[in-house]
Amino acid sequence: MKQAIVFLLDEYADWEPSYIASILNSDTTWNVKTASIKPKVTSIGGFQVDVDYLIENIPQNIDLLALIGGNSWEITNSSIVKLVTYHLKQGNIVSAICGAVDFLAQNGLLEGYKHTGNTQFLWTDFESYTNAADFCEEQAVRDRNLITANGTAPLEFSQLCLEAVRFDEPKEITKTIDLYKMGYYGYVEKYGDPFS
Amino acid sequence: MKQAIVFLLDEYADWEPSYIASILNSDTTWNVKTASIKPKVTSIGGFQVDVDYLIENIPQNIDLLALIGGNSWEITNSSIVKLVTYHLKQGNIVSAICGAVDFLAQNGLLEGYKHTGNTQFLWTDFESYTNAADFCEEQAVRDRNLITANGTAPLEFSQLCLEAVRFDEPKEITKTIDLYKMGYYGYVEKYGDPFS
Repeated sequence: MKQAIVFLLDEYADWEPSYIASILNSDTTWNVKTASIKPKVTSIGGFQVDVDYLIENIPQNIDLLALIGGNSWEITNSSIVKLVTYHLKQGNIVSAICGAVDFLAQNGLLEGYKHTGNTQFLWTDFESYTNAADFCEEQAVRDRNLITANGTAPLEFSQLCLEAVRFDEPKEITKTIDLYKMGYYGYVEKYGDPFS
Repeated sequence: MKQAIVFLLDEYADWEPSYIASILNSDTTWNVKTASIKPKVTSIGGFQVDVDYLIENIPQNIDLLALIGGNSWEITNSSIVKLVTYHLKQGNIVSAICGAVDFLAQNGLLEGYKHTGNTQFLWTDFESYTNAADFCEEQAVRDRNLITANGTAPLEFSQLCLEAVRFDEPKEITKTIDLYKMGYYGYVEKYGDPFS
């Protein structure tokens, strides 16, 4: 069974994990677990989530670490830095969206990687953010085992994660994402009826 | 304080409540609470949610009832029928997306309303579904106080809910939705930078 860890903080952005978590967890070969620095988090939308793992209990052998954005990433937390550093060095797929990318920038974890995020403007005071030239003005970016995205790009983020973990053929992944991006009627016009 | 109830069942579709819940709950004049027929539900994506209200404790005085789709709506449940009937008759805004619309169709609750849903094909055996001619092939439909949508239309669903509860001027609601629909870079091209 392949294992994805969706890492959340309080006031996480409800829409950001919604596609990648549901697509992976609907597949019989994948298992999605939530994790945080505390046992219970509440989303921006008010959803109270009991997380599966506290950060210290996350298994080391995972296939995707997805750090979800929100309003609580302006923190100092060495455990999260350690977690991300470990998986980046292992070559495991790490992805971060929205506020979670701000945290990576602040802690020098984007170094050596082309990346994107909500806006570079917030990072000008981050001493450990040394590769501003690697910022790409795109919805989502993958550079080897690191995926980054802005907070309006949950679908682009999910697509790059699915491609990185080789969830399916790229053409099939595009179709999966297009169903949500184009909506049912737009999709039918392009590909035919997905349910017939 | 205005009150929205987001009604969930097990295996609810993570992406469907994500925009409407977070947009409303981010506003200081709105409060979003979750509700179900049991105290804890798990999403398709594996998120374990402690709901705020059991169905019998949902306050009567609410401003939006949003029924979220998923894989568990093929049920018989008179409490949910009663809840929806009450709010429709009161003229309160009721919205349903994806599987939740199947439940309304099966229980005759679409009667008198133009509507949409995932597909009419699933409803041919529903004796209480008597107004097939009122089905519109659109992503989301509002007819007076009832909003319906298919499962690929969380943003169109949210837009119609926000318009129905008069959350803001229609033009501003469109901009809010377009930020997610077009993505940051598409939005900037059309409207300018939302964060500057």
